[in-house]
Amino acid sequence: MSKYALGIDFGTLSARALVADIHTGREAGEAVMDYPHGVMDKALPDGTPLPPDWALQHPADYLDCLRVIVPEALARAGVDPADVVGVGVDATTCTLIPVDQAGTPLCLLPGYAGEKHAYAKLWKHHAAQSQADRMTEAARARGEAFLARYGGRISSEWLFPKVWQTLEEAPALYEKTARFVDAADWIVFQLTGREARSSCLAGYKALWSKEDGYPSEDYFRALDPRLTHVVRDKLPGEVHSVCGRAGQLTEAGARLTGLLPGTAVAVGSSDAHVAPPAAGVTRPGQLLMILGTSTVHLTLGDESRPVPGICGVVEDGVVPGLFAYEAGQCCVGDHFDWFVKNLAPEAYAREAEARGIGLHALLTEKAARLAPGESGLLALDWWNGNRSVLVDADLTGLILGLTLTTRPEEIYRALIEATAYGTRLILENFEAHGVAAGSLVACGGIARKNPFLMGLYADVLGREIRVARSAQTSALGAAMLGAVAAGRAAGGWDTIAEAAARMGGLREEVYRPHPAAHAVYDRLYAEYARLHDWFGRGGDDVMKRLKALKRAAR
Amino acid sequence: MSKYALGIDFGTLSARALVADIHTGREAGEAVMDYPHGVMDKALPDGTPLPPDWALQHPADYLDCLRVIVPEALARAGVDPADVVGVGVDATTCTLIPVDQAGTPLCLLPGYAGEKHAYAKLWKHHAAQSQADRMTEAARARGEAFLARYGGRISSEWLFPKVWQTLEEAPALYEKTARFVDAADWIVFQLTGREARSSCLAGYKALWSKEDGYPSEDYFRALDPRLTHVVRDKLPGEVHSVCGRAGQLTEAGARLTGLLPGTAVAVGSSDAHVAPPAAGVTRPGQLLMILGTSTVHLTLGDESRPVPGICGVVEDGVVPGLFAYEAGQCCVGDHFDWFVKNLAPEAYAREAEARGIGLHALLTEKAARLAPGESGLLALDWWNGNRSVLVDADLTGLILGLTLTTRPEEIYRALIEATAYGTRLILENFEAHGVAAGSLVACGGIARKNPFLMGLYADVLGREIRVARSAQTSALGAAMLGAVAAGRAAGGWDTIAEAAARMGGLREEVYRPHPAAHAVYDRLYAEYARLHDWFGRGGDDVMKRLKALKRAAR
Repeated sequence: MSKYALGIDFGTLSARALVADIHTGREAGEAVMDYPHGVMDKALPDGTPLPPDWALQHPADYLDCLRVIVPEALARAGVDPADVVGVGVDATTCTLIPVDQAGTPLCLLPGYAGEKHAYAKLWKHHAAQSQADRMTEAARARGEAFLARYGGRISSEWLFPKVWQTLEEAPALYEKTARFVDAADWIVFQLTGREARSSCLAGYKALWSKEDGYPSEDYFRALDPRLTHVVRDKLPGEVHSVCGRAGQLTEAGARLTGLLPGTAVAVGSSDAHVAPPAAGVTRPGQLLMILGTSTVHLTLGDESRPVPGICGVVEDGVVPGLFAYEAGQCCVGDHFDWFVKNLAPEAYAREAEARGIGLHALLTEKAARLAPGESGLLALDWWNGNRSVLVDADLTGLILGLTLTTRPEEIYRALIEATAYGTRLILENFEAHGVAAGSLVACGGIARKNPFLMGLYADVLGREIRVARSAQTSALGAAMLGAVAAGRAAGGWDTIAEAAARMGGLREEVYRPHPAAHAVYDRLYAEYARLHDWFGRGGDDVMKRLKALKRAAR
Repeated sequence: MSKYALGIDFGTLSARALVADIHTGREAGEAVMDYPHGVMDKALPDGTPLPPDWALQHPADYLDCLRVIVPEALARAGVDPADVVGVGVDATTCTLIPVDQAGTPLCLLPGYAGEKHAYAKLWKHHAAQSQADRMTEAARARGEAFLARYGGRISSEWLFPKVWQTLEEAPALYEKTARFVDAADWIVFQLTGREARSSCLAGYKALWSKEDGYPSEDYFRALDPRLTHVVRDKLPGEVHSVCGRAGQLTEAGARLTGLLPGTAVAVGSSDAHVAPPAAGVTRPGQLLMILGTSTVHLTLGDESRPVPGICGVVEDGVVPGLFAYEAGQCCVGDHFDWFVKNLAPEAYAREAEARGIGLHALLTEKAARLAPGESGLLALDWWNGNRSVLVDADLTGLILGLTLTTRPEEIYRALIEATAYGTRLILENFEAHGVAAGSLVACGGIARKNPFLMGLYADVLGREIRVARSAQTSALGAAMLGAVAAGRAAGGWDTIAEAAARMGGLREEVYRPHPAAHAVYDRLYAEYARLHDWFGRGGDDVMKRLKALKRAAR
């Protein structure tokens, strides 16, 4: 008799439930639902307009989705709830919900529907940039050791900038907030009745480390005296290691999902950091690239080393006992989409339509016919700034080598190549600071759907790349956390490595570099690296000056 | 009773005849005809294939056009040939025809139809680059004074590289060639029976100057001993000042054109250098921009000064007694056409179609709604290399400041702005070397059809710009040469300044800079100039390295 684990993945636009076989990883059934309110970046549900850079979610959507997708996935899988040994949850992060003493999001309380700070601030809410900048400055000025774990800079996407923004802009609401809770932790709380803050979420988004805890009260006092006791007052409770058990399904949680009360529930995780085990990445010496609209790079190490320009290094961030290093590129799939939406010519649109294929497929086909270096083009992949290793949102895209004979597919290929160079620079930065990237695994939609891109990456990186077997590495990874939360005695697994060995894994194909192409790309990459440093490290700050002129003109 | 002059303009793809009133410049009638053989850049008429970079014309086409367009223009104008006082001719240059002792192009002789060197090498024949480079090197090594008149570099488009290529690749045909004649001079010869080499053509394209003549036999010997006597043997005859009279129509010339024998015929000129008088530019302190697929800048001075990066300074090049300075941009209209052909998205194509306008018009309309600096974009206008002031064909286009919100019209505007910055740099270069650009006049299709672009140029340059009245400044300028060739006694004019005052002139409108826009463009131009020097003067030769990789890949 098969046993199953259930993974629930809360993304930016939708939630997905996946039922996976404990022993084989077979994905027996899944269900997806878009959030009724989507991403709120223009107005609240009552019409209250939102300022620029805001991005909110409605926490009621998470519950609405749970009620639909869990029973639907079980039904599609034909699995009896009694055969589900455990549940895991991941979500985007830091997607921060202010709740009252009972754990109810403030936006659900009477009188708060028109208060924008009462909703969940989505990971890509960028309106706390000022707070993030001041936090970085203060940490630098005070020589705070934690800063090195985050590549030297605090992002506006993280927890404390969002908390501080709430305090500064809505002090009464801040007072009313009993706790600030990241989305995955809040959903686990809905299922188990217990808040069990995740080491992954706290580590990557709340400046927490297993060794040092959160930043000191002195640091927070230096930011704003009202923040002095923010950790004690607004983030109470212990941090729990990922791959641990948060609790078990309550009666209420069971009613919400159609699962049985008492089913094991895992500590929550993030949608990126839950993926590596699903791709078989549980040991040092492997690096996972999650290729989507943007790219996340995750690798594991036995020790914490300062690596400039990364997003963070967190003990127990992915696998207990190991340090998980994260880096990233802001703009990968988005980059290619921008080109197709804005610059794909009519003739190509007609050709694609006549052949019944998409513009990406057509451009990929044409780009694949070019040899490395043939276009004479070189781009810097900074259309959305640079996350790693420069950590600079004010950098912008560049393309060079254009001539009157330059064709659309040449530009399209140059954009792909630029993202590959950016990845190579991140890998080399890891290795230059003692963190071996080792063998490469990719997952995400692009990795599965675009063999041309994967082959090009192999040629640029000069390394073999393998691809995760599952199309849903986040949901599968969450299910694996559920299996581990149950434990072997209850039909699950005791460690994530055990779960990964049975449920995770790779596809057969290997993308291997072609030596001749790699030799050309070595030379092109040297040009990329030179331009990267010139425009990214102060040789010529023209991009920043143009951004300032742009802001002034608007 | 009105008197008329006839101008005949031989362009790259077609020839045009224009009948203009001597006293008012009124354009009474015109006719145009495409060359039957067009530009031959793939194969000869008999199918013989041509190598890359070749571009030929068939001299028979010039005569075929003459037979059609002159009678047609006269008929349309309703003008009696007896009322035509003079004829002027301009053509592209250096478009070089090898002829036999009788002046017959070799390609018309029996047995030569399949010999590519027997045809006219069109101005944009670029297969003599190796000869041009060796000529520049030798001139530098020998410290030849003439080099300074040409901005320090000899172009493959000029006369001697084409002659030397013929010698090196087809020595027997070189021997057979009695003379090498530039197209305008050859057409004047067809009309008058006299070869009267033009000071404009010899000055800009054959390294000739009124003071020093051609380069020395020592210089030619240093290139190739067989070239020692090239001037004496292959370019016999005196050089005649433009605005002079070459002769009068012979019986044969009269039969060819339908004009009367004895009609005055002017010394030939180039299609660019014939334009300034038609725009009223006959004195120092005025600069004419001829805006087309590329841009030519012409200004006049009382003396010869060395100006780096110009195309040439020639005494009697435009107006007798004055020094005409030429600079240029390789890629202006071509730049915008490239964008529309390759990167205008389907949605815009549909919108333009629905509204019954062209894509250029649509993009211009959208671009015009943007404020200076608003796009955050900056481009270097080197899609076809840089003619002035860097004189470097291996430079390529760059665009910087791209983001995920960058729209097509922002790029389109950035390309226009880049050409304006390039023009500003050329003007500042003239003035930094003591040649006052003075008041600005524009002509050419873009100048007349695109008020948005002209306004933007005024904002970038910070100067007023006026536009020539005539849509056909070359043909009108040629007619003015015809009027001067006739002289006042025969119903024409004695000087080109007289002719310009009556027949040339400007439109009413003046493009004036907006101070606020100019202030923003001052800052953007400073960024342009910095990038221009970094990538164009050796700061980072990445463009050249990419071109080398491109050549290796192809």
